[in-house]
Amino acid sequence: MSIVMKERQGPLRVVVWGENRHEQVEPAVAKRYPTGMHQTIREGIEEFLGEKAIVTTATLDEPEHGLTEERLAETDVLTWWGHAAHAEVDDAVVERIHQHVLAGMGLVVLHSGHWSKIFMKLMGTTCTLRWRSKHDREVVWTVDPTHPIAQGIPHPIVIEEQEMYGEFFDIPAPDELIFISSFTGGEVFRSGCTWRRGNGKIFYFSPGDQAYPVYYHPDVRHVIANGVEWAASDRPTREVPVLLRYTEGDFFTGYDYDGPFEPGDPL
Amino acid sequence: MSIVMKERQGPLRVVVWGENRHEQVEPAVAKRYPTGMHQTIREGIEEFLGEKAIVTTATLDEPEHGLTEERLAETDVLTWWGHAAHAEVDDAVVERIHQHVLAGMGLVVLHSGHWSKIFMKLMGTTCTLRWRSKHDREVVWTVDPTHPIAQGIPHPIVIEEQEMYGEFFDIPAPDELIFISSFTGGEVFRSGCTWRRGNGKIFYFSPGDQAYPVYYHPDVRHVIANGVEWAASDRPTREVPVLLRYTEGDFFTGYDYDGPFEPGDPL
Amino acid sequence: MSIVMKERQGPLRVVVWGENRHEQVEPAVAKRYPTGMHQTIREGIEEFLGEKAIVTTATLDEPEHGLTEERLAETDVLTWWGHAAHAEVDDAVVERIHQHVLAGMGLVVLHSGHWSKIFMKLMGTTCTLRWRSKHDREVVWTVDPTHPIAQGIPHPIVIEEQEMYGEFFDIPAPDELIFISSFTGGEVFRSGCTWRRGNGKIFYFSPGDQAYPVYYHPDVRHVIANGVEWAASDRPTREVPVLLRYTEGDFFTGYDYDGPFEPGDPL
Amino acid sequence: MSIVMKERQGPLRVVVWGENRHEQVEPAVAKRYPTGMHQTIREGIEEFLGEKAIVTTATLDEPEHGLTEERLAETDVLTWWGHAAHAEVDDAVVERIHQHVLAGMGLVVLHSGHWSKIFMKLMGTTCTLRWRSKHDREVVWTVDPTHPIAQGIPHPIVIEEQEMYGEFFDIPAPDELIFISSFTGGEVFRSGCTWRRGNGKIFYFSPGDQAYPVYYHPDVRHVIANGVEWAASDRPTREVPVLLRYTEGDFFTGYDYDGPFEPGDPL
Repeated sequence: MSIVMKERQGPLRVVVWGENRHEQVEPAVAKRYPTGMHQTIREGIEEFLGEKAIVTTATLDEPEHGLTEERLAETDVLTWWGHAAHAEVDDAVVERIHQHVLAGMGLVVLHSGHWSKIFMKLMGTTCTLRWRSKHDREVVWTVDPTHPIAQGIPHPIVIEEQEMYGEFFDIPAPDELIFISSFTGGEVFRSGCTWRRGNGKIFYFSPGDQAYPVYYHPDVRHVIANGVEWAASDRPTREVPVLLRYTEGDFFTGYDYDGPFEPGDPL
Repeated sequence: MSIVMKERQGPLRVVVWGENRHEQVEPAVAKRYPTGMHQTIREGIEEFLGEKAIVTTATLDEPEHGLTEERLAETDVLTWWGHAAHAEVDDAVVERIHQHVLAGMGLVVLHSGHWSKIFMKLMGTTCTLRWRSKHDREVVWTVDPTHPIAQGIPHPIVIEEQEMYGEFFDIPAPDELIFISSFTGGEVFRSGCTWRRGNGKIFYFSPGDQAYPVYYHPDVRHVIANGVEWAASDRPTREVPVLLRYTEGDFFTGYDYDGPFEPGDPL
Repeated sequence: MSIVMKERQGPLRVVVWGENRHEQVEPAVAKRYPTGMHQTIREGIEEFLGEKAIVTTATLDEPEHGLTEERLAETDVLTWWGHAAHAEVDDAVVERIHQHVLAGMGLVVLHSGHWSKIFMKLMGTTCTLRWRSKHDREVVWTVDPTHPIAQGIPHPIVIEEQEMYGEFFDIPAPDELIFISSFTGGEVFRSGCTWRRGNGKIFYFSPGDQAYPVYYHPDVRHVIANGVEWAASDRPTREVPVLLRYTEGDFFTGYDYDGPFEPGDPL
Repeated sequence: MSIVMKERQGPLRVVVWGENRHEQVEPAVAKRYPTGMHQTIREGIEEFLGEKAIVTTATLDEPEHGLTEERLAETDVLTWWGHAAHAEVDDAVVERIHQHVLAGMGLVVLHSGHWSKIFMKLMGTTCTLRWRSKHDREVVWTVDPTHPIAQGIPHPIVIEEQEMYGEFFDIPAPDELIFISSFTGGEVFRSGCTWRRGNGKIFYFSPGDQAYPVYYHPDVRHVIANGVEWAASDRPTREVPVLLRYTEGDFFTGYDYDGPFEPGDPL
């Protein structure tokens, strides 16, 4: 009479969120990503996960940015790309995403998403970095070859044209550091990092930019697909951790917190 | 011609922040801590750091909670105890403290401070836990004997009377786990943890409650004093990390970020 | 034209290694584990992994302790229980196991295996601990609810009768700390820990003793089964990392190290 | 009546160990480091620590490699540079150093010391890496600006001429990752890492080679000096962790382990 191990039923439900502003404003970006970067990212995930995932997209300009409570409740993993319009993302939607991550929704933050409200809220730091938008070559090295996200990935990945993201990257020390990048100029960057927050798993992967065709790079797509698969929770249910009171002798039946004062305290 | 190593000039400037509400409302607490818990905590730090520190206090009911920009700018380490009135702490003051921590101010969060706005903001999680307010014995074990905060501390510390804080404690995996506690009821708790955020160092230590005389316990006072000393920054200046642009070939002279679009982009 | 993600073909090949000495010498142990502890552990893994694994056993008294090069080469995960006869394990076999772990074989070390030659060699520390062989209750708490090994495991596991293993446990800080135990006497122990070494993954789980029927406990069996599944490498091939020389411009074709002196050095 | 905090009495006693073989065999090295690399390293430490340290040297060709039990017993921190003759280091001396590190002696491993017997024994891995001996520029970036070892160090350090050490570096995930280097060829390396083992602290720093004047670089010298100061134990006494038995109710008086069988067991 033991507990049955959880097996995920059905494919992963993945939502690729894209800000979709550069594509509207800059012809060069629109030409590079004719259906939007979110579609390109989506296709990359589908290419590698195939029938293991059902991938849809959502964008900033949709009502509630396409991320209603109902939508998030049926999302296993959310990927996030934003840049020009971080400030336009509604705080209420950010709070909603935060709660879902803490409850177990996976989150994959891409490139300039380092400065998104949701990533900063989860990290607690400025998430600032060193930056140059020139034609650097980025080389992505695996430093944790045992990690699921590194499986099938060349060592190194060579990205012929990329902007530079460099250290110091103001993030909490990652739970797992998987990739480190170098750039033509000699800079380095912790480009693939994981963290757990609450019941949720977070993967940040820096390669990718509107100004370069990085999201067509097969290895970049592969890493993102691996990251999506890894970030999906192994837990059978989604729940935000809560503070509960427990009687001595009963480890399992917590009851609600009544507030900071004891019953009878003369408030 | 090399850079001179920094030596701190003068004693550490420590501010012990106390909510000071239980002491006003509950006669038993007022009797236990007649000058307020913050004064008892202050005396504990002074006992162990002596001339190495100048310790003052600040409380919730002071203007700006006693934590003006000027005050924080001359504070090396802030300790935080709150419980009944977390919600009354002004968001603007929390934001100010957050910036100072990211810039290098040390922060020591005590006991029920786990649910303070500043701690939750730095952690990015719910900071919830398992709880029981009965007469448990807490035993605090050292699991990192090399850590400065563990120096001079008995293994274990025995606290005869304490409330129970138990796992799951919803925090990011600590950078360093120094102490683990057990309780009479069989619960365990990661009771001494450190994290870095930005240029700041954070130490959380759970023993201590308004309902028990824990802040008179010599070993608890010693840990807090060690924690204060450890949390003080080794950096010569305080600065919040910023995002800067760097020309290739010049590693040292960053210039300001101009926004997400390139000059000439048709906005 | 992208790299195909690896999918394991066929079930996991698991070898449960048991010292099998207490069972021969102590009637009480023989009665408790009539077919040997290794058989009980094997049955526990089979109970939870079913057709996902083919589980066999090996013991100290077999030639080469049942762990020939051929056997290890076809083992995905090795579990290790030893106690009375650590010193009798042949150094050559230990070296062989070490190489296989570094190459990617999973290793699950159980209970008194903390003092086995292979665990000490992988950890680099004394692996000593605090100990008492009395009738303690052990309570095992999950501190990383996102970890695959914690899935399906009650929080906490209650083991009514166990010997005590306590801190300080002299191990490297774990890559992941999953479980912390408390004991009747008030001691605590980091009872579920992971580390990566080379291409291999290692899980240590402390509950389990010859003097108590711990390996019949459904939750203990479940954790061990989860640990076996987690420790199996995701990598398609097994290889020990080697030092190679690389020409500039060629990231992928390393060639052998020629020794510490340059060609032409006047040796 | 509280425990007095430990203050180190007198200066740090540092032993700089050098293999001193290249200097004897290769005229170019002898010219570059006329008194031996160990002397240059020593002078670098003295330059930065001044009266805070008494620095001496020891070399391979001295009896017991200059590292007798008596010498180690009065050494607070040992630095290690070896390359051509790792295999000539006596296993008994390695075992002796290992015990001292576990007891609390600090260890700073430099450059090609990554393949020394003592480092491999402490790490448990192959400690292999990617390598090229050409004229690369190494740029060393700080990724943990709060760390004592990073204080006073430029971000980045630029080393105009160095050989290349690249990933994958087969080490356990560091407790703290302080520096990451890039090289002209685009490779990266975790060049400044710490670990705790037993009561000892270990710092590995990779810049430095017999073929280049790296140990005259002021920033490299500064990092090594900082590393020496950091690696010194804060503990008042040196002791190897041991396995002890404890009676319930007495946390402090352990007694010796009697062997794996209980008294009365029919051996």
